[in-house]
Amino acid sequence: MKKLNRGVAIVGAGMSKFGAFPGRATRDLFVDAFTEMQGSVDKGVDVNDIEAIFIGNYSSDLFEGQGHTAPFMTDAVGLTPRPATRCEDACASSSAALRSGIMAIASGMYDMVLVGGIEKMTDLPTSEVTDTLATASDALYDVPAGYTFPGFYASIATAYMDKYGATPESWMSVGIKNHNSGSLNPKAQFGQRIIDIMADKKKGAEKKGKPIPTWADEMEFMHDPRANLIIAWPMRLFDCSPVSDGAATLLLVSEDIAKNFSDNAMYILGSGQASDVTLRYRSDLTTLSSAKAAAQQAYEQAGVTPQDIKVAEVHDCFTVAEVVATEDLGFFKAGQGFEAAEEGITSLRGPRPINSSGGLKSKGHPVGASGAGQVVEVWKQMRGEAGERQLEGDIDIGLTHNVGGTGESCFVHIFGRK
Amino acid sequence: MKKLNRGVAIVGAGMSKFGAFPGRATRDLFVDAFTEMQGSVDKGVDVNDIEAIFIGNYSSDLFEGQGHTAPFMTDAVGLTPRPATRCEDACASSSAALRSGIMAIASGMYDMVLVGGIEKMTDLPTSEVTDTLATASDALYDVPAGYTFPGFYASIATAYMDKYGATPESWMSVGIKNHNSGSLNPKAQFGQRIIDIMADKKKGAEKKGKPIPTWADEMEFMHDPRANLIIAWPMRLFDCSPVSDGAATLLLVSEDIAKNFSDNAMYILGSGQASDVTLRYRSDLTTLSSAKAAAQQAYEQAGVTPQDIKVAEVHDCFTVAEVVATEDLGFFKAGQGFEAAEEGITSLRGPRPINSSGGLKSKGHPVGASGAGQVVEVWKQMRGEAGERQLEGDIDIGLTHNVGGTGESCFVHIFGRK
Repeated sequence: MKKLNRGVAIVGAGMSKFGAFPGRATRDLFVDAFTEMQGSVDKGVDVNDIEAIFIGNYSSDLFEGQGHTAPFMTDAVGLTPRPATRCEDACASSSAALRSGIMAIASGMYDMVLVGGIEKMTDLPTSEVTDTLATASDALYDVPAGYTFPGFYASIATAYMDKYGATPESWMSVGIKNHNSGSLNPKAQFGQRIIDIMADKKKGAEKKGKPIPTWADEMEFMHDPRANLIIAWPMRLFDCSPVSDGAATLLLVSEDIAKNFSDNAMYILGSGQASDVTLRYRSDLTTLSSAKAAAQQAYEQAGVTPQDIKVAEVHDCFTVAEVVATEDLGFFKAGQGFEAAEEGITSLRGPRPINSSGGLKSKGHPVGASGAGQVVEVWKQMRGEAGERQLEGDIDIGLTHNVGGTGESCFVHIFGRK
Repeated sequence: MKKLNRGVAIVGAGMSKFGAFPGRATRDLFVDAFTEMQGSVDKGVDVNDIEAIFIGNYSSDLFEGQGHTAPFMTDAVGLTPRPATRCEDACASSSAALRSGIMAIASGMYDMVLVGGIEKMTDLPTSEVTDTLATASDALYDVPAGYTFPGFYASIATAYMDKYGATPESWMSVGIKNHNSGSLNPKAQFGQRIIDIMADKKKGAEKKGKPIPTWADEMEFMHDPRANLIIAWPMRLFDCSPVSDGAATLLLVSEDIAKNFSDNAMYILGSGQASDVTLRYRSDLTTLSSAKAAAQQAYEQAGVTPQDIKVAEVHDCFTVAEVVATEDLGFFKAGQGFEAAEEGITSLRGPRPINSSGGLKSKGHPVGASGAGQVVEVWKQMRGEAGERQLEGDIDIGLTHNVGGTGESCFVHIFGRK
């Protein structure tokens, strides 16, 4: 990766609530995110100065029967006739949009660009959502063989358990942790601690006069096959991120005008991206080589090391994915990430907090919006605006790690101050 | 539009045959295009020097059940683990990819980028193809109202006829012209003159012992409702581009290294893009304001006028669209494009040739590949490699005009020598 011809800063960020919104259109969620972004610009912005729009979206085609979504989102926020393009790399689509926005500004083509991410998944029945997501893997070979994403990540988890001695409890500890953090995030789709979900379920059962479940504690709940269904062993319900609707937006400007909008802008220090073959060709299932390559590019470009990262949002589409990510990013050595999760090292108040937002697991995973949503969390943490989940200390360098498919694409971005 | 931080050149271009290829996968067509591109680089290229891939594709999701197509295409040509992103703007998707490639190089991020376009549409029944294409218009309002693209362009045609006095024969003259040119293009899907199609049909009818149609000449054939079905009046079968499979690729490098690959490279002089609202909100149906805006940007950036353009590939998804394009691009005044077509001014040997390749009408319209395919034609014409359809004179400046939907997106690119 060479040096960009000019620097890029983020001066605004916003997101819709993530969740299931049957009565609302995707463009409504996009307007929510855009409005919050607009309000977040410290010194204000005339949004008419936005020159181009890049929208990350996985498949509004299959989810909503809507292709060509970028100009419609552009119209929804009153920015027609500005150029609008959709970027797609499966669940990393809005990181692709961010990277396109960065290049657009660095190229000299534009000074101000809107980057967005959108996805509305809940209009389809869940089984069809699973099929739709499966099309991010190879439709010629993987899909006809019956592989879906829970199966793919279950393969990764079993390979990891076999190689490093992790247990199903290792994965559960990630889910519990992320719901703990997500309970402090008002935008989260499932913003409840698992222990509270358990209590609620008990209460509901009492109300209906049904036998009260005997779940004595969180881990017992997590082992109960009625409460925590096995989806694809060892991945159970609470190991899987939900099906979500949501949108997120970022306002990018060239570095030289950033101070016009904020004295507290967030600068792009590094942007890495790599691709990979599908899972069936890989020599090692316990790591994503695309993540390692993208991380190396981003670290080198930023001139920082994993130890410098104060806030990290990583792609926990499944709990095992978070553990693998923390190793691929160099936070832990290969085979040690699961113990870090079990020991609370990656919890909100631990020494290496991961996914302070609640992650995709708790916050929600509207796939095309997830990458931009990660950046919104880093933005809030770096500005000290994360409320009850605010990380301690000076949060001066942040990172996002966003995976497409099972790592056929991966993006790592690093952000800092200047 | 500001000046790019560095210039960009195209040093290689290739395309698969366009057509219906039921036995072949999209990646096979992409390999065809890639292989031809590789062979087209005058001084040779080590394709391992390609640093990133941008793939234009409208909806492999709906056409093939394949999302996340960029890394799979990348794998097919042996370029994993390079970063790979899909760009989408409906039928202008590979122009979006081209523009992303230009910005990627101009940003300083990369020196060599592969731009591709792919679409495989013929695996679906034609009725489902029409529905799939319709999703490029507004799925909340236009699609439920029953609008499909033939209907949209029929509306444009009737509005144009009402305003300027064109007739159905005006549109037919575009179809006849483009099939004449396409008959000289070995890559064309329907590379036959309409008069020859007519003769073949007669022969077929004779063989089957059926009454021989009395089509006396081309126009009579064009008026025969059995030979030339009314699809959405005044758009008949021979006014519509076909359903196609195909792929095209372009090799982009930074201007400062272009001479390492060719002394006859094609340089990007201008790149324009604009968006628009859907048809139902527009005050005038006889022009695409996004095309006008994109053209203005591209002309200004290139410092040229419409009169300077020697070769132009424009988006004739329907015959009427070509006429509107030639006016939006400033080749003719509003309301005069249809007469230019009728009078042969836009024919291959006319003073203002349009769509020497045969256009989408004859060459085929694999939507995500069409924009890159247009560039391949400009590449061949500018290098004097267009065979029997080679335009006369020094073809030093070329243009492509690529529309998404009914102009919710439009791209105009201008190419020249340096």
